[in-house]
Amino acid sequence: MLNKRKIINDPVYGFISIASDLLYDLVDHPYFQRLRRIKQLGLAEVVYPGALHTRFHHALGAMHLMGQALTTLREKGHTISDYEMEAAQAAILLHDLGHGPCSHVLESVVIPGAPHEAVTLAMMKDLNRQMSGKLGMAIQMFEGTYPRRFFHQLISSQLDMDRMDYLKRDSFYTGVVEGSIGTDRLIKMLDISNDQLVVEEKGLLSIENFLHARRLMYWQVYLHKTLLSAQAMLTRILYRARELSEEGEQLFATPDFGRFLANRYSLADFDSQPDLLNAFNGLDDNDVWASVKGWKKHRDPVLSVLCEMLLNRRLFKIRFYDTVPDESVLAPIREQLRESGVLDSEMDHFLVTGQTTNWAYAREQDPICVKMKDGKLLDITDASDIPTIEALTKIVRKYYVCWAKNVSLRG
Amino acid sequence: MLNKRKIINDPVYGFISIASDLLYDLVDHPYFQRLRRIKQLGLAEVVYPGALHTRFHHALGAMHLMGQALTTLREKGHTISDYEMEAAQAAILLHDLGHGPCSHVLESVVIPGAPHEAVTLAMMKDLNRQMSGKLGMAIQMFEGTYPRRFFHQLISSQLDMDRMDYLKRDSFYTGVVEGSIGTDRLIKMLDISNDQLVVEEKGLLSIENFLHARRLMYWQVYLHKTLLSAQAMLTRILYRARELSEEGEQLFATPDFGRFLANRYSLADFDSQPDLLNAFNGLDDNDVWASVKGWKKHRDPVLSVLCEMLLNRRLFKIRFYDTVPDESVLAPIREQLRESGVLDSEMDHFLVTGQTTNWAYAREQDPICVKMKDGKLLDITDASDIPTIEALTKIVRKYYVCWAKNVSLRG
Amino acid sequence: MLNKRKIINDPVYGFISIASDLLYDLVDHPYFQRLRRIKQLGLAEVVYPGALHTRFHHALGAMHLMGQALTTLREKGHTISDYEMEAAQAAILLHDLGHGPCSHVLESVVIPGAPHEAVTLAMMKDLNRQMSGKLGMAIQMFEGTYPRRFFHQLISSQLDMDRMDYLKRDSFYTGVVEGSIGTDRLIKMLDISNDQLVVEEKGLLSIENFLHARRLMYWQVYLHKTLLSAQAMLTRILYRARELSEEGEQLFATPDFGRFLANRYSLADFDSQPDLLNAFNGLDDNDVWASVKGWKKHRDPVLSVLCEMLLNRRLFKIRFYDTVPDESVLAPIREQLRESGVLDSEMDHFLVTGQTTNWAYAREQDPICVKMKDGKLLDITDASDIPTIEALTKIVRKYYVCWAKNVSLRG
Amino acid sequence: MLNKRKIINDPVYGFISIASDLLYDLVDHPYFQRLRRIKQLGLAEVVYPGALHTRFHHALGAMHLMGQALTTLREKGHTISDYEMEAAQAAILLHDLGHGPCSHVLESVVIPGAPHEAVTLAMMKDLNRQMSGKLGMAIQMFEGTYPRRFFHQLISSQLDMDRMDYLKRDSFYTGVVEGSIGTDRLIKMLDISNDQLVVEEKGLLSIENFLHARRLMYWQVYLHKTLLSAQAMLTRILYRARELSEEGEQLFATPDFGRFLANRYSLADFDSQPDLLNAFNGLDDNDVWASVKGWKKHRDPVLSVLCEMLLNRRLFKIRFYDTVPDESVLAPIREQLRESGVLDSEMDHFLVTGQTTNWAYAREQDPICVKMKDGKLLDITDASDIPTIEALTKIVRKYYVCWAKNVSLRG
Repeated sequence: MLNKRKIINDPVYGFISIASDLLYDLVDHPYFQRLRRIKQLGLAEVVYPGALHTRFHHALGAMHLMGQALTTLREKGHTISDYEMEAAQAAILLHDLGHGPCSHVLESVVIPGAPHEAVTLAMMKDLNRQMSGKLGMAIQMFEGTYPRRFFHQLISSQLDMDRMDYLKRDSFYTGVVEGSIGTDRLIKMLDISNDQLVVEEKGLLSIENFLHARRLMYWQVYLHKTLLSAQAMLTRILYRARELSEEGEQLFATPDFGRFLANRYSLADFDSQPDLLNAFNGLDDNDVWASVKGWKKHRDPVLSVLCEMLLNRRLFKIRFYDTVPDESVLAPIREQLRESGVLDSEMDHFLVTGQTTNWAYAREQDPICVKMKDGKLLDITDASDIPTIEALTKIVRKYYVCWAKNVSLRG
Repeated sequence: MLNKRKIINDPVYGFISIASDLLYDLVDHPYFQRLRRIKQLGLAEVVYPGALHTRFHHALGAMHLMGQALTTLREKGHTISDYEMEAAQAAILLHDLGHGPCSHVLESVVIPGAPHEAVTLAMMKDLNRQMSGKLGMAIQMFEGTYPRRFFHQLISSQLDMDRMDYLKRDSFYTGVVEGSIGTDRLIKMLDISNDQLVVEEKGLLSIENFLHARRLMYWQVYLHKTLLSAQAMLTRILYRARELSEEGEQLFATPDFGRFLANRYSLADFDSQPDLLNAFNGLDDNDVWASVKGWKKHRDPVLSVLCEMLLNRRLFKIRFYDTVPDESVLAPIREQLRESGVLDSEMDHFLVTGQTTNWAYAREQDPICVKMKDGKLLDITDASDIPTIEALTKIVRKYYVCWAKNVSLRG
Repeated sequence: MLNKRKIINDPVYGFISIASDLLYDLVDHPYFQRLRRIKQLGLAEVVYPGALHTRFHHALGAMHLMGQALTTLREKGHTISDYEMEAAQAAILLHDLGHGPCSHVLESVVIPGAPHEAVTLAMMKDLNRQMSGKLGMAIQMFEGTYPRRFFHQLISSQLDMDRMDYLKRDSFYTGVVEGSIGTDRLIKMLDISNDQLVVEEKGLLSIENFLHARRLMYWQVYLHKTLLSAQAMLTRILYRARELSEEGEQLFATPDFGRFLANRYSLADFDSQPDLLNAFNGLDDNDVWASVKGWKKHRDPVLSVLCEMLLNRRLFKIRFYDTVPDESVLAPIREQLRESGVLDSEMDHFLVTGQTTNWAYAREQDPICVKMKDGKLLDITDASDIPTIEALTKIVRKYYVCWAKNVSLRG
Repeated sequence: MLNKRKIINDPVYGFISIASDLLYDLVDHPYFQRLRRIKQLGLAEVVYPGALHTRFHHALGAMHLMGQALTTLREKGHTISDYEMEAAQAAILLHDLGHGPCSHVLESVVIPGAPHEAVTLAMMKDLNRQMSGKLGMAIQMFEGTYPRRFFHQLISSQLDMDRMDYLKRDSFYTGVVEGSIGTDRLIKMLDISNDQLVVEEKGLLSIENFLHARRLMYWQVYLHKTLLSAQAMLTRILYRARELSEEGEQLFATPDFGRFLANRYSLADFDSQPDLLNAFNGLDDNDVWASVKGWKKHRDPVLSVLCEMLLNRRLFKIRFYDTVPDESVLAPIREQLRESGVLDSEMDHFLVTGQTTNWAYAREQDPICVKMKDGKLLDITDASDIPTIEALTKIVRKYYVCWAKNVSLRG
């Protein structure tokens, strides 16, 4: 019987149980508590005001689904030890530790030299030290070095518990009901074959639905025009702040955030500066927003105008293109911005170009395997006589231009 | 202010309001009350035990969505009179009146000579007589002769309120959550252009989701193997009963049902026999099931065995094929049935072949039109740069064989 | 690993798993399959058109909750063997076998001499014979003779899995959202103390909510005026049919139903007539409705008028009273009925009086025990400082009169 | 037809429509956009991680319900002009403008001299000036001076749209399903009698359910022990910060928040300092959290220890009492805190006492009126023969003590 047994309310699944003392201690740790203050969908609330759920809740949800998936696999006769169960739940619980504030698009500005997966691993290893090696197996599963590889696939693949939770959760909180997936059924269709995660043939339609939902959520939510515009603005704000900070300007920021703005840390720095991980753990959405608010009257007009616009939701205009937009598109915008007082040296802060790609299923990567009734394993595109699965492997690429439409920079 | 204002609880939409006295009187009429006793999904409850909802509830739901759709169109500036609103709601309310008991696959046995659409129209005209012509416009809209043709499209097209309600409702009651559609958003995306029902460009993803959900529901529910098997059995039961009845055998049946078993009525008979419509209105699911129960000890072994099997859910085995199954498939089954005591003259009652087809979107029929931001109207397959829409127009055809596996007909 | 593992879609809980071969065989048995054809809420669909769910689905749901409850108790450190788990699930699965068609108010007409609990037990014992004694422990738990008495409390008490499922399910299908209860949380609050089912102190508010929901469902659904009226009509139809049948009249009915109409069986008859249980198993809602439809043109005007009225939803008028309604109420109604052609000997079929009582919690019966943080056990009314729990123990009694308002019996 | 028509996704109601240009401009205004950054339930996410919804979303939801309520009243024959409709929706949309950051328990620290209702009114008047008087009627309705007083009751009473939305929304986002209310049905039961908001008699059970849900939400959410503890901590953090700030200490804070920490503004100051309203509009949750994070290493041990504890969820222990806890309770705690290094002058920051009261229905205030079938108006406690309504008027009062259990203040 647990000393620390705990259930947590979750509007998505009803209740989430924390199944062991170790898991409880992980949830309780400051590294994990920090995720309470980082929204799963970053700025998406500019479009979907309900989308305020955090990486904390998502990670708990993914742990919950992991428990369900492993219970299903046990019921199908596969031996999974209690220790493996706990390790897999720990691994998925911690899989997002290294995310920076707001949204992963900001990561390249805040810690240009360290991708979030690497920071996650550094934090997991640090936790493992603090907990006397109890996370050894979880780390193996996370890295993919644990011998039974299906555990890694449950943590990170095209059918992992991470995606299942975030699709379900993001659909729920945005209110985009078309993106909802049937996690219950999907999980009941999972099986293991040759040490590999597979889906029973009778789950084909559910998988197809899962891929469709995923694609729909990309266009409707993750790559929504207005969100891309807000992200572009916040990215430019931080670039500008970093420019000013590196020029020696004192900028309003929490001490931890100030440190990251003033330096360009790489992964190696986390090893050489023992307190850097702790400083990183001091970063969350509040730091960013407090700075945006602190900078809205900054004397640098670029910085203050962008902050003021973002806070009051006067967002950049954005337009999609099928091909790379050329000068016939950009030149008139630049001209218009110049007339508004934007200097050429500031142009990049008010005129942003980019591209987005989206494909629902990448056959090459880590294919979704279907176990046919006769026992054969097939890639999902071969298993289905449904023409749409093939279509879902096509990459759709869009280009965009976004710019400040009614800015007035200097009087 | 209404005298007969009424709201009806609906687990799907919360509440359904009956908006006028005329609509109230229609709901109250025996023709409509009969639909309380006809399940929307026929025998689907053999697979999905929650799928017990009736055509009564579906018709109310479709009326509810019609109200929402017309309100949306009004908000977009289109003039729709209160009288048109009522007529459109009446038309969709009555669109299923002519359905026979259980499921429309039975119709060819029960009334071989009259398709349900024709019976519906006969009943609507009869109601119109009873109500002194108040249904004139509704009938025009139903038949497609009303000048503003978008009304007919809302009643019957690939994007009509009928489909929207049944997809949503069937998904809800079966518990197949993957088939759920976002009716709210779909309806808010509707518009009229050149007197034609269209969808705003920003509703493209919702339409695509709607088509996918439809296809999924076909394979997962409407064409579910076990359901096809149960339908085949019930169809054979009725064919056998008709055979016996036409040979002069007295079969247990309610008077109305007995009359339809003993005769093969055509549409013309409804005109020449004034009480036939009334007798038809006496038919519902209970008649069929009561007969199946009454026949389970009939001395004809074919009839009694089939009834006993269906009642206790000992269903035919069923197998799908990509091509027409030939003798290599059928011969061994026939042999096995012969060994179980089935005579060659009875073989058709225990070995059934058939085919099903499914396509999510038929471009040729009555295309779904998208109104692009520049005002142009495009067929949805042209409007979308999404490769899957094209794939959804492909027809998928499957053949099946189903047969009594463990039957023992004569001792 | 199971041979017969099966999951069933359920709109209420998502999926219900059948956890063992024995449970699968029980579900598959004709005794249980019959429950597919008996609606849980009888005639309630006259008010709530969605309320078509069956005792079959309810029993599966109760089995599902039993599994969850026992898993929770195991997690809290109580030893429950796999065999006990299966027996408890079997017992709750079968707890409704003996219900007659339509609604338990009809039972006194159809089998006046045998309460449904007794018939259930007879059927469970018969199943036990058929299954070579495998249901021994389940029967003990059902009867309350199994030594660990909390199992019986989970099957039948004021906090049993039966009530939890039916409240949740009835609320879901009627659409009366106010009656919804939080089964997840209620179950997580269960514990065992001194071999007795108890609720943790922190579950007090959930219990209170459960009692309120139950009371609301009584007034809003189970004792709804319109439902009482329809039930009174159907009861009178069956009384009249029995009168006629006992006078030697041949009435349209399935063979099994006809047998029960022509005889007044007692429990003893089930022992002396070995085929009676089988005949009982032939009874379901379809028999009743088919007869009502078969009798709507019967030459007995009482029978035919009542049937016609019920089928077309022209229901008796009904009025509630706080005290027994006296002659000042009844006399004018009788007079009016006489003027409509009702003979005094037929009066009881057109003027029905009755009473209903409702209390949310009966302290005397089988109290709900709360385990306080200090370990003490208290009755819920003593455990709560919430004044409303006390109020919920008050019995509310109402009297009603219902009668045919616009009947015209003889021309 | 609107130029600015807009629909907003809402997981609670599906979609919220903004019905007019004026309403759109209000939503778009910086005063309203600020509410995006203030959580409806303040710190409740320490207990319910899903409870992150904002006052922005709540205000939109209340506006949505107001539209539904007025539409219902129109359908019942009451004349309500489009202008009144818009004014009522504007009034409820703006009713929370004056709330300070985090939770209203902080208001007494941040702006000790101005209750939030007064600040709301000041902001509404300022908006009215900016919008050339278009909000005149809305302000009258909000203040209760508009002649038709039911409008004010819909905005502020024991049955207003504010409560309806927050109960429904808080239940949804916390996942406390027992607190869910049937807003659809409640609203359909509203009527007007003698210019007063009333409920139809047949809505009695719904009202009772509403009151119960409200009481449950109070104990389960709003007055949850862990939440009270976290609130006490944050309150003490701000008191301490104010102390230090008033002693001249420079504290990390955004400029606007710093201004409010350094001064004790009263309502009069908003008149005399024209930019104060603007500064107030600069305050939101991010300011508070950024400061807590900025102070976690402050040299004042009281401040830094409290901040560190709150950020990592090491919360004060809390205990409830039925009577005012006396020295026998407090003295040992004080002793323990002294041993942990807490000075007597700092004791109030680590040992907090308080009380909470809760009653579901206050008859005296602004009674809920029921319109009986005979037209009479009764207070709900008189209208119901349900004993629990009376019980709901009882006030329940609890006292609490909370303190830092394992603090170690000075080494």
